[in-house]
Amino acid sequence: MKQAADQIRALLRAPATGDGPVDLAAIDPRGTPGLPEKRRGAKAKSWARERVTELGGDLATQQEMLYAGAQVDPPADRRVLLVLQAMDCGGKDGTIRRVAGAMNPLGLHIRAFGPPTPEELRHDFLWRIRRSLPPRGYVGIFNRSHYEDVLIARVESLVSPQVWRGRYDEINAFERELTDSGYTLVKVFLHISPEEQRERLLKRLDNPTKHWKYNPADLDARARWDDYQAAYAEAIGRCAGPDAPWYVVPADRKWYRDWAVANILAETFADLGLGYPPGNFDVAHERSRLLDA
Amino acid sequence: MKQAADQIRALLRAPATGDGPVDLAAIDPRGTPGLPEKRRGAKAKSWARERVTELGGDLATQQEMLYAGAQVDPPADRRVLLVLQAMDCGGKDGTIRRVAGAMNPLGLHIRAFGPPTPEELRHDFLWRIRRSLPPRGYVGIFNRSHYEDVLIARVESLVSPQVWRGRYDEINAFERELTDSGYTLVKVFLHISPEEQRERLLKRLDNPTKHWKYNPADLDARARWDDYQAAYAEAIGRCAGPDAPWYVVPADRKWYRDWAVANILAETFADLGLGYPPGNFDVAHERSRLLDA
Repeated sequence: MKQAADQIRALLRAPATGDGPVDLAAIDPRGTPGLPEKRRGAKAKSWARERVTELGGDLATQQEMLYAGAQVDPPADRRVLLVLQAMDCGGKDGTIRRVAGAMNPLGLHIRAFGPPTPEELRHDFLWRIRRSLPPRGYVGIFNRSHYEDVLIARVESLVSPQVWRGRYDEINAFERELTDSGYTLVKVFLHISPEEQRERLLKRLDNPTKHWKYNPADLDARARWDDYQAAYAEAIGRCAGPDAPWYVVPADRKWYRDWAVANILAETFADLGLGYPPGNFDVAHERSRLLDA
Repeated sequence: MKQAADQIRALLRAPATGDGPVDLAAIDPRGTPGLPEKRRGAKAKSWARERVTELGGDLATQQEMLYAGAQVDPPADRRVLLVLQAMDCGGKDGTIRRVAGAMNPLGLHIRAFGPPTPEELRHDFLWRIRRSLPPRGYVGIFNRSHYEDVLIARVESLVSPQVWRGRYDEINAFERELTDSGYTLVKVFLHISPEEQRERLLKRLDNPTKHWKYNPADLDARARWDDYQAAYAEAIGRCAGPDAPWYVVPADRKWYRDWAVANILAETFADLGLGYPPGNFDVAHERSRLLDA
C-alpha cells in the first residue's frame, strides 16, 4: 500500500517549469493514473471508495499524532496545509467532505476564500492568507487560496499585468517561509474537462436542493475556460517548488479524485515520520496517586 | 423517531433555578434516560451506535441546509452553537469526533478554549469568545467556553468572588444578545462520576499513545471535585435561559452520551424548520445558456 501511494504521488506531481507553464492539455481529466491494473473496469469505483475509507482511518491516526505532538512541552512545530484549487464544479467541496471528513474535525483548520472583502482589499494579497494559516498541530485546508490572485485576478484583469506577474515570486517566497517554519504543503489542482463541468452544472439546475450552489456568473468564468487553463498552467509550473509541490489530479471521475487525494495525503504524512509523543511524567507514580485519591 | 428525540431533549434539559444551583447529585452519570425500554440490555450499545450513524446523516443534511441558507442573497442570519463543558475525561473530544464528525467539516467552526493567553487576559473574559463565534451558516462548537470563567476561575480563585459572581448576569446578557441575533444555543454538560474519571485516567496511563492527553495537574482539579460540581451546578442553574438551554447528559457510558447529544442536536435542528433556499435565476434560461455555450 505504501508502494502504491508513492507511485501515485510521483505520477501526479507537476514539474517545476521555471518561467513557463505546465502542459495541462496533456493530462486527461478522465484519466486514472496509478490505479492498479487489476482494479480497472466495472468495479473500479467501489474498490476505490473502499480504499478511501481504509485510507481515512490511516489519515485520522496521522492527524491525531500531528495534533498530539503540538500538545506536549516542548510542542512540535508541525502543520500540514492542503491547498485545493479548481474550476467551478471541480469538486473542492466534495473532496473535503470525503477525504477530510475521515479526520477528527477538532484538528482541522478549514478556510474558504471568496472574493476579497473591502477590508482585505486594503491589504497585501497575502494578508488574509497569513491570518488563516493553521496553528501548530493542525491540518489546514484552503478551499481556494492565494492562487486566486494569479488566476481570476489575471483573467479578469483585477490588477495590472505588472502586479500579477510579480506575484509568482512573492508566492514562492511566502511558501518558502512556510516550509522553513514547519509547514508541509500539499497543493492540489482538481483538473476537470469543460464537458464534465457542463454536466455538473446541468445537474445542479435539475436539482432544487442544489440551486444555492448555482450562480449565473459562473458561466462567465466558463466562457473564459482557456484563459483560466493558461493561468493555472503558469501558476502551477512557476510555483512548484521542491518543498511546495503541486499535484494535478484528474477529477472528472469523483471516485478517482478522492482516491488520489487520499493517497497523496497518506504518503505525505508517511514522510513526516510522526509518532505519539511520550509523556513528561512517571507512569507508576501517577498511577499510585490516582489509586490513592 | 422525532417523538423520541423530543422526549430526550425534554428529559435532559436543566431547569432554570434563578439564583440557586441545579441538583447535579440527583442525576446518575451512569443513567440512560430516554433510552427506549425495549432497547435496554445487552444490545443497547450497538443499537445506540447505529442510531448515531443514522442521526449523523440527518445532521449532515440539516447542516447543509443551514450553510446553504447563508450562501444566497439575502443570506439567512442563522448559526447554531454547541457549547461542550465537562470535567477532564468527560468526553468532549470524543463527542465532537462522533457527533460532529458526521457533518461536513467545511461547515463546522470548532474552537477550543485553553488557559487564557497573556493577550486574552488583557481583555474582558468574553473578548476571546466573541472573536470565536461562528459566522452565519456555520455550526459552531466550543470545546470549553466562557463558562470556564465561572468554573476554574471560581474554584481556583483566579478572580475575586465579586468578579465571578457578576459573571452569571454578564453571561446571560451575552447569550441573550446571541439568541436575539440568530444564534441557536445548545449547551451540554457531560456529567461523569469520579469513579469513571479514575478509570479513564488509568486507561490513559496504560496506553502510551494516550500519554499526550495526560497531565499530572489534572489530578489537582480532581482533588477539588465537589467544588467543581458546585460551580457547575450554579452556572447551569443560573444561566439556563429560555432560549439558552443547558442539557445535563449522563456521560459515564460513551454510547449513551453520543446518542443523547446527537438526539439533542437533531431535535434542535428540527425546530429551526430549515430548507434549501430557492435560486435567484430562471432555470430554463440557464439551461439553454449552458447548452449553447
